Amino acid sequence: MVTPVSTDCPLCLAAQEILVWRDGSCRVILVDEPDYPGFCRVVWHEHVAEMTDLTPSEQRHFLNVVLATEAALRQLMRPDKINLASFGNVVPHLHWHVIPRFSDDAHFPQSIWASPQRTGAHRTAPAPDALTGTIVAMLTEQTSG
Amino acid sequence: MVTPVSTDCPLCLAAQEILVWRDGSCRVILVDEPDYPGFCRVVWHEHVAEMTDLTPSEQRHFLNVVLATEAALRQLMRPDKINLASFGNVVPHLHWHVIPRFSDDAHFPQSIWASPQRTGAHRTAPAPDALTGTIVAMLTEQTSG
Repeated sequence: MVTPVSTDCPLCLAAQEILVWRDGSCRVILVDEPDYPGFCRVVWHEHVAEMTDLTPSEQRHFLNVVLATEAALRQLMRPDKINLASFGNVVPHLHWHVIPRFSDDAHFPQSIWASPQRTGAHRTAPAPDALTGTIVAMLTEQTSG
Repeated sequence: MVTPVSTDCPLCLAAQEILVWRDGSCRVILVDEPDYPGFCRVVWHEHVAEMTDLTPSEQRHFLNVVLATEAALRQLMRPDKINLASFGNVVPHLHWHVIPRFSDDAHFPQSIWASPQRTGAHRTAPAPDALTGTIVAMLTEQTSG
């Protein structure tokens, strides 16, 4: 089967990304968003739009990677909350936002797509290497759990 | 084990909900949101905050119900996109938003938490009975697939 690719899709193009983990199905990238250090995107390689376009085993694998990313960010950053979202209205290529949230960030308790509430407190993102190692550890824990 | 409940949590209280499906772990409710007919919430019964607070089998079951709801809404409404989100910044009780999106709705292609783009086109939500039946059918399909 030929992997679906769209030549005008930025998530197919995958340029200038901070890649922290990948396998044959999907990848985790660290988003360069100063207000949201640690913000990650988990991107399915194929250009498909919806979770229910994947097979059940593909869905399960993709969500395992999303939740390993959540677990890694909780361990490394101790956020007040994790936000998860899959929209794809602008770029209909399956991807999940995994966002560590803090009560003093720019939008809390609103979503990061709402109007800002304040100037957010400054924090530092985890080092990409630390994130990679922790995601691998969390995936290993899922498999053995 | 005593099920965690918070006495001041609206999702624990579960008052005035349009319930379309439930089992021993979670429920699907139809949200009364005129701009977003078909908007559903999938709510975990226990008062826990994060997906990674659940066991792997609980995570899998919850996400199966979320994706059965997505599949049912796609079949009944043929939306241009499905949006999925789990925030819980205001109410830290695990729940998923499952939102059928249309290119002429009030916020498209932005998230529904952003500023409105236009007066949205009018649509009718599926009847709760039809939604219940289709969710059950989708869950059966997952099990046999």
